[in-house]
Amino acid sequence: MLAVVRRNKQLVCDEIAEPVPAAGQVLVRTLCCGICGSDLHALHSFENMLELGARAGTPSTVDPAGDIVFGHEFCAEILDHGPDTAKSLKSGTRVVSMPIALRADGFDAIGYSNNYPGGFAERMVLTEAMLLAVPNGLSDVQAAMTEPFAVGEHAVALSDIGPDSAYLVIGCGPVGLAVIAALKSRGLGPVIASDFSPARRAVAERVGADVIVDPTKESPHGRWSALGVPVTGAERTLQMMTGKTGKRAVIFECVGVPGVLQGIIEAAPTGSQVIVAGVCMETDRIEPFLCISKQLDFRFVLGYSPIEFAATLHNIAEGKIDVLPAVTSEVGLAGVAAAFAALADPEAQCKIVVRPGA
Amino acid sequence: MLAVVRRNKQLVCDEIAEPVPAAGQVLVRTLCCGICGSDLHALHSFENMLELGARAGTPSTVDPAGDIVFGHEFCAEILDHGPDTAKSLKSGTRVVSMPIALRADGFDAIGYSNNYPGGFAERMVLTEAMLLAVPNGLSDVQAAMTEPFAVGEHAVALSDIGPDSAYLVIGCGPVGLAVIAALKSRGLGPVIASDFSPARRAVAERVGADVIVDPTKESPHGRWSALGVPVTGAERTLQMMTGKTGKRAVIFECVGVPGVLQGIIEAAPTGSQVIVAGVCMETDRIEPFLCISKQLDFRFVLGYSPIEFAATLHNIAEGKIDVLPAVTSEVGLAGVAAAFAALADPEAQCKIVVRPGA
Repeated sequence: MLAVVRRNKQLVCDEIAEPVPAAGQVLVRTLCCGICGSDLHALHSFENMLELGARAGTPSTVDPAGDIVFGHEFCAEILDHGPDTAKSLKSGTRVVSMPIALRADGFDAIGYSNNYPGGFAERMVLTEAMLLAVPNGLSDVQAAMTEPFAVGEHAVALSDIGPDSAYLVIGCGPVGLAVIAALKSRGLGPVIASDFSPARRAVAERVGADVIVDPTKESPHGRWSALGVPVTGAERTLQMMTGKTGKRAVIFECVGVPGVLQGIIEAAPTGSQVIVAGVCMETDRIEPFLCISKQLDFRFVLGYSPIEFAATLHNIAEGKIDVLPAVTSEVGLAGVAAAFAALADPEAQCKIVVRPGA
Repeated sequence: MLAVVRRNKQLVCDEIAEPVPAAGQVLVRTLCCGICGSDLHALHSFENMLELGARAGTPSTVDPAGDIVFGHEFCAEILDHGPDTAKSLKSGTRVVSMPIALRADGFDAIGYSNNYPGGFAERMVLTEAMLLAVPNGLSDVQAAMTEPFAVGEHAVALSDIGPDSAYLVIGCGPVGLAVIAALKSRGLGPVIASDFSPARRAVAERVGADVIVDPTKESPHGRWSALGVPVTGAERTLQMMTGKTGKRAVIFECVGVPGVLQGIIEAAPTGSQVIVAGVCMETDRIEPFLCISKQLDFRFVLGYSPIEFAATLHNIAEGKIDVLPAVTSEVGLAGVAAAFAALADPEAQCKIVVRPGA
């Protein structure tokens, strides 16, 4: 079958072996699959990601020198069932799945594996137990966005949401948009969104952000007082002493480059919670004394749970989350390498979806 | 009256003006007062602390070029009542107080003020509304330890304590000891305590730590598995999939020097909570990707609330917290400068208490 293969840190469109479903697995036709920021990282720095992962206690058996087919944000159609399958979803059913292939002793990450080609291929094998049927009426692209938007669902689920919080999302790429969508799907707000790119600010507004800030013109932290968040320690103390505690700032870091965290540390109100969803692969510098003085709370988040994944699909299907503003382009397999390059410019592209059958 | 004054970044024993209680204030005789690590910082770096505090949104009106009398961990005896006082506590009553002098528009920090001499002086003025009477039977030194041990009460109150957590305290100086005491006063454990100093490890054991680790011989993080904490992401995933989620690691950083945080980031189990109580005044380096991979949670904490302060006094009085193992020496005002120097060696000293009347 045709696939886009990572080989020698390049993306090449090539014929690879047809995947064969083993026990408990199904063969699917890939309908579409989004390109993730992690894929961009992994193209050039997969070795570094594996090394950091091993240092974080999650060693991988993946050989980065071997062929890898990326793609973990997919919608697919069942073609055939392997042995020992329940077949509760029939051939022809459209499905999504967490990009996880279960093994007796753990799992493989579909899209970051030598054994499980991801969605930048005509066909994949998936674990039957992980499949979720796509509700009627949802397009392939909408369904494929379940995975990246589940990242926002998870980040929001781990934050101190509630009527006494106000929200700032820094960075309106796919992660930031997913966070905005997850907040607004719960009816929460106000949500301030900040991004250097006018195009991404426009998408943030379409996804539901209440206040849009251009950080070249003003600090997004300049809006807190107007939203009822006490900014200084003295303000917070005074409000507590008078019983008016005010709102708490919950800040989502969705950029993931060095310096953003320290920028938040310097500007965030006293008592803020910082949810770090941006994936920074480099060493970063912070000033702990400022964190202590402000009693900041940092929660680093990754991925999502099966329940959060299913809830996201449900929210998209119910119209509570509109994923389509994030999708800026579609390409066939032949266009994947160029799409990776195009995603370097946030003004030009946000989420590009690959259609292997196109 | 006689006091130890910070002047030109030196400590000098000198006569200063007698303090006079204003409206709502009382005049007290200082019975004893502990030397805090913040005092050691402030002797040489008070200017830096003020600058960082201002950057953190808490600007100070203190002039670091003026005289300052340190000392905010005190027990005192009421000598006289100023105007507009309720006099519910009579002269002769022994009291403790948060080191806060209330003003109509905020407060002064007693011991870090040009106007309010702290406990390294024969007499102080305190705010009557802030006073707590020392229960009968509690020694002056025990009562004075309310303040530093309240820091541990606050750190523990903001942590995810419970039957499903296991605890590691890194650094067994006064802050770490206060954390250990606050955990054990709640009947929580097991508590692992780690310090490079044999003397401080011995104190940690006396204060109630369950497992004592010499970090020159083994990593304190080597004990997690034995306490039922899954260490790697794969272990945690497997335990979750089998319904055995295991315990969560709650790690208290009570050292406050660069590099300790990154050491925790590298060695902590997946999903750990890190309570940062050590006060690091320098820029520090971290690897965010490891934090994200492990989904770590960092809560930076400072000080305590009035309720936590009162609870700590109560716990000391009830015998739930034994503060005396932390106190290694007593000095008069003439010995304060030498005591500051002696505290540089953790093996020799832990908490030194000043008795201005000695």
